[in-house]
Amino acid sequence: MNKKFVTFLPAGVKVEVESGTDLLTAASKANIEIKAPCGGDGTCGKCAVKLTSGTAKARRDSHLAARMAEKGYNLACQTIVQDEDLVVEIPKTSAMSKHQVLVDSSTAGQGMSEALSDYLLHVWQLKELFQQKQECALNGYPLNPLCRRIKLTLPPANLQDNRDDLNRLTMALKKETKCTDINVPLSIIRNLGEIIRADNFRVRVLLSEVNGKAEVLAIVPGHESKPLYGVAVDIGTTTVVAYLLDLDKGRILETAGTHNRQARFGDDVISRIVYAVDEEDGMKNIHQSIIDTINTLIMDLLVKQRHIKENDIRVMMTAGNTTMAHLFLGINPKFIRLEPYIPTANFYPVVKAQELGIRINADALVFSYPSVASYVGGDIVSGTLFTGMGNEDAPISLLIDIGTNGEMVLGAGDWLVTCSCSAGPAFEGSGITFGMRAMYGAIERMEIDPQTYEVSYTTVSNGKPMGICGSGLIDCLAKLRQTGIIDRAGKFQTSLPTERMRIGEAGPEFVLVWQEETDLDRDIIISEADVKNLLRAKGAVFAGIRTLLNVVGFELESIEHIYVAGGFGNYLNIPDAIAIGLLPDIPLEKYKYVGNTSAKGACMALLSQEAWAEANNLASKLTYIELSAGNLFMDEFVSSLFIPHTDLTLFPNVRL
Amino acid sequence: MNKKFVTFLPAGVKVEVESGTDLLTAASKANIEIKAPCGGDGTCGKCAVKLTSGTAKARRDSHLAARMAEKGYNLACQTIVQDEDLVVEIPKTSAMSKHQVLVDSSTAGQGMSEALSDYLLHVWQLKELFQQKQECALNGYPLNPLCRRIKLTLPPANLQDNRDDLNRLTMALKKETKCTDINVPLSIIRNLGEIIRADNFRVRVLLSEVNGKAEVLAIVPGHESKPLYGVAVDIGTTTVVAYLLDLDKGRILETAGTHNRQARFGDDVISRIVYAVDEEDGMKNIHQSIIDTINTLIMDLLVKQRHIKENDIRVMMTAGNTTMAHLFLGINPKFIRLEPYIPTANFYPVVKAQELGIRINADALVFSYPSVASYVGGDIVSGTLFTGMGNEDAPISLLIDIGTNGEMVLGAGDWLVTCSCSAGPAFEGSGITFGMRAMYGAIERMEIDPQTYEVSYTTVSNGKPMGICGSGLIDCLAKLRQTGIIDRAGKFQTSLPTERMRIGEAGPEFVLVWQEETDLDRDIIISEADVKNLLRAKGAVFAGIRTLLNVVGFELESIEHIYVAGGFGNYLNIPDAIAIGLLPDIPLEKYKYVGNTSAKGACMALLSQEAWAEANNLASKLTYIELSAGNLFMDEFVSSLFIPHTDLTLFPNVRL
Repeated sequence: MNKKFVTFLPAGVKVEVESGTDLLTAASKANIEIKAPCGGDGTCGKCAVKLTSGTAKARRDSHLAARMAEKGYNLACQTIVQDEDLVVEIPKTSAMSKHQVLVDSSTAGQGMSEALSDYLLHVWQLKELFQQKQECALNGYPLNPLCRRIKLTLPPANLQDNRDDLNRLTMALKKETKCTDINVPLSIIRNLGEIIRADNFRVRVLLSEVNGKAEVLAIVPGHESKPLYGVAVDIGTTTVVAYLLDLDKGRILETAGTHNRQARFGDDVISRIVYAVDEEDGMKNIHQSIIDTINTLIMDLLVKQRHIKENDIRVMMTAGNTTMAHLFLGINPKFIRLEPYIPTANFYPVVKAQELGIRINADALVFSYPSVASYVGGDIVSGTLFTGMGNEDAPISLLIDIGTNGEMVLGAGDWLVTCSCSAGPAFEGSGITFGMRAMYGAIERMEIDPQTYEVSYTTVSNGKPMGICGSGLIDCLAKLRQTGIIDRAGKFQTSLPTERMRIGEAGPEFVLVWQEETDLDRDIIISEADVKNLLRAKGAVFAGIRTLLNVVGFELESIEHIYVAGGFGNYLNIPDAIAIGLLPDIPLEKYKYVGNTSAKGACMALLSQEAWAEANNLASKLTYIELSAGNLFMDEFVSSLFIPHTDLTLFPNVRL
Repeated sequence: MNKKFVTFLPAGVKVEVESGTDLLTAASKANIEIKAPCGGDGTCGKCAVKLTSGTAKARRDSHLAARMAEKGYNLACQTIVQDEDLVVEIPKTSAMSKHQVLVDSSTAGQGMSEALSDYLLHVWQLKELFQQKQECALNGYPLNPLCRRIKLTLPPANLQDNRDDLNRLTMALKKETKCTDINVPLSIIRNLGEIIRADNFRVRVLLSEVNGKAEVLAIVPGHESKPLYGVAVDIGTTTVVAYLLDLDKGRILETAGTHNRQARFGDDVISRIVYAVDEEDGMKNIHQSIIDTINTLIMDLLVKQRHIKENDIRVMMTAGNTTMAHLFLGINPKFIRLEPYIPTANFYPVVKAQELGIRINADALVFSYPSVASYVGGDIVSGTLFTGMGNEDAPISLLIDIGTNGEMVLGAGDWLVTCSCSAGPAFEGSGITFGMRAMYGAIERMEIDPQTYEVSYTTVSNGKPMGICGSGLIDCLAKLRQTGIIDRAGKFQTSLPTERMRIGEAGPEFVLVWQEETDLDRDIIISEADVKNLLRAKGAVFAGIRTLLNVVGFELESIEHIYVAGGFGNYLNIPDAIAIGLLPDIPLEKYKYVGNTSAKGACMALLSQEAWAEANNLASKLTYIELSAGNLFMDEFVSSLFIPHTDLTLFPNVRL
């Protein structure tokens, strides 16, 4: 076939592709990430690019592609390289990455810079953990890492005690660890004789103990001492965050975060599953993407801590939703999205790093947090562990993590119920005209003057506004309602005396930011359709809470603590979230931001065998409520499509 | 470096080697095996070859090399390729293989013939098992193979029963197998969802159950049926024998045997250990040799059974002595030969075929029989299992396996003691002027006329005589004594009126076969030095038996059964063995030939989980008596250096 060059601006990256390739694929090949929440189906319109040189063909006569073309844009996923080299400009609104980590050029070696070019600093997500480079919160669990070293003096061999070396070792380990089942892999047995004699039957054994079973990972002569590190990884659908831990001291040494490279195959878990299942090599590609993502993070952690060797990282703990866990381990996720929504596995095998291609010690053990169901994953189990909701004396509490799905856990000690409501990706920016993730230039807070309807706002990193992220959208909805711009059903009051209110292409819209204040070529607006999407999203979450309460026969007032988790949760304006009916109208002091509990629980499990045992216990104990079985949820959902709710008695403190 | 060609006759195989290479190494490269019991040290004189074209250099000025040169021979191990191509003739006495299997030329494919050229038919060793191509003797253990298929119907998934697929499978397996610990490897989990739905939640699971733990090896939809085979391998120091078993029917389908290719590195376990430990890449080479040997046998088994695929072989069981087990698994054997003689492991991990490079299904499990001590290995444990000596109601019995070491087990039901006495390789032909293995042309039976001193004999496969194998040597010793040719101490009566008695290069010798009857250029003789070597060998074995009896406080008469095991044992003339004082003087009806019990026990363990559990139990139960600790054995040994013994009351029925 014919090969052509495509140059992407502003990065200036040139890539050779076969003619017939679409620009989204070409960009991916060039390691440039373009937004494509629909996975390249030509339906979301987020991958708009500009051809500045050369001509190309539109894949099909899509309405959206035509509309974009009118505005001088092409959808990258629908534009096909033909017989000409192309130069393509990616506008900031379409680019996935906004700003890059500055790496000291004297230390960024060849090859490294390419890997790091992919690295994005989500300052606001990592801040909390950067500050915490000290003790890792263990919430009462003892420091007793999943992998530890034991110093042993074995009884020396002689004609009277001529037991074999392996027996000598395992008997001593059984005594020392209380484990009844000690597994020593052949690779270690092979040279055991020399090793135990090198320091006169004194050895250091590196082992991992879980449930009374111990796996020996390494053994060295007693006089050799090696450091011992672990990595905890929170595998989010959007963002992946890794922590380098000193297992001896129980400290977080470094943190690094980046986009999940799977984003090129779709924004949410459903589009990723579709890609994995339907595309040729889909499973292989999407599995490799997350492995690559994690390897990049590990490299970054090691660069920051230059005296640490990858071989000294001996254990890894991951937490993520059920789909992420499947894709990370290379398990076919097909049935997660098909009724009756069955994951292939909720409890995952412990595997060696080399089996997955994770670039730490080849024999390091990789643990994955157990899931509860297709849409309640290890990240939620990890969060439940972190909050202590399953502890014996815990009061009735609610853990809530809002993303594309609103996952929540309600419980107290010995009972825990959980569900996942499909909130849709509105709070993550998808399906909202100017929705975007909480990146540079995203509006995160907003006020609207009730007299003048003028809008004031703050953006992430004080960048020029480019869109609105989840916390901004909640603020926005609350303010639109409080100022009477929309009614309780979300309908726009088009007669208001302000030029911000107007009729746009898709119906009524309200201008939030005029074009001249932005970094864009358009005004930033919110439309009536956007508002309806937001109502559905918040309605689903609240209906989920109500359904869980119904199942166990409690009222909103019974809840003693609400833990708001997740990157988004951290920046949520809780009074506004209550005002729109997203969160229950209970006293603010009962709310607690808990941040990235998935990551925190992963660190805890890595540092404490007891915490890991409890995580597994919680995964078994959590009772999953399937919302699509029965009408309870649907009734609650319909009642929640108003601001704050049809039943105003549920929100006594909300000023309408 | 300079490369030269060496052509080996009579095979006509040409190989290119660097000048500086010795002829033993060159032959090994050409896949031609030359006898080299000393491992190429130039000390045994067995690797004599003739240069028929070209000149070469002797490695060093060894006395032996000089003596051979006088006779027109060169020691292959001491002869170095220089600047000329060479043609080398290997006399039959030096060649390891005597005759080859005849393979129908229409079926021997390219490549295959090379592998099979290595194949040697030890008719007399395999005969027994060839005839047995039917049921494998399980000696009362149930047919319940280490690997079996289970047909399961899983409860179908729905919104009410939305457990994950893995849980659905493991719960059903726990119920079916009574195993509490079910391991499903990630590779199988990855596509589990599709597989269990392909035949509506009906599946066939292939699994291996040991000690209440089950390992899932494969899972297919219920409508797919696959055959299931296993391979049992007896890894002897000299000979390796493999059996292809139908695990469903409990039948032996095929048998194949060949030389252990490690022989090129030395004849006995000690020289192999020295090679493995002292030579560069020694461990790697010697490990690979046995893997190659086994792979050749497997290929041969498969060729014979052409409708069987290597992928359908799902499990393998090996039995061998402790050194063979170490070398097979790649475990450093160094400390086996250093006081206090500690093996690295007696119980070996179960590993996957691919980890060892065994060419059966990559995920097949490879089991290794447990050992008891450095010189009492899995072959003896296997034999103990086969004889049933550890069974509850077993009478006092003795199992004896004579090779380089005489290994023996004495016991009855709940007590079992074992030891190994270093008999030296005399019975295997080493250290005896015309000693050879039980191959084509070996004298295996012998009579000497008490009047004329004329010798009559039979040879293996009726070949022209070329030497004497173990059973022939025992006959020979008995007859030499019975005819008064030697006295009780083994001294030759040089004044006898026969020209067969003469003084040779190394002292008195007796001509057993005149040159014209042989296939050699010399008379076949036995010397006084040979006799002394044989006395030491038989003395060590009898002293071992006496020492075991002493330890437990029993007399020779207490023994109800003596099981004579091993390829050598099968052809032993027991009255002669008693006459020379090798075996106890108890009624002949108490003796039983049991053949290759190592192989038989390996087949049993493969076909019966119960047998395998008992094999492991026996390995723990066997009490090892270290003969080098204390003086008991040495005193017995010195008393045993006469024919039959210094204490004639121990041999009341032996006519002197």
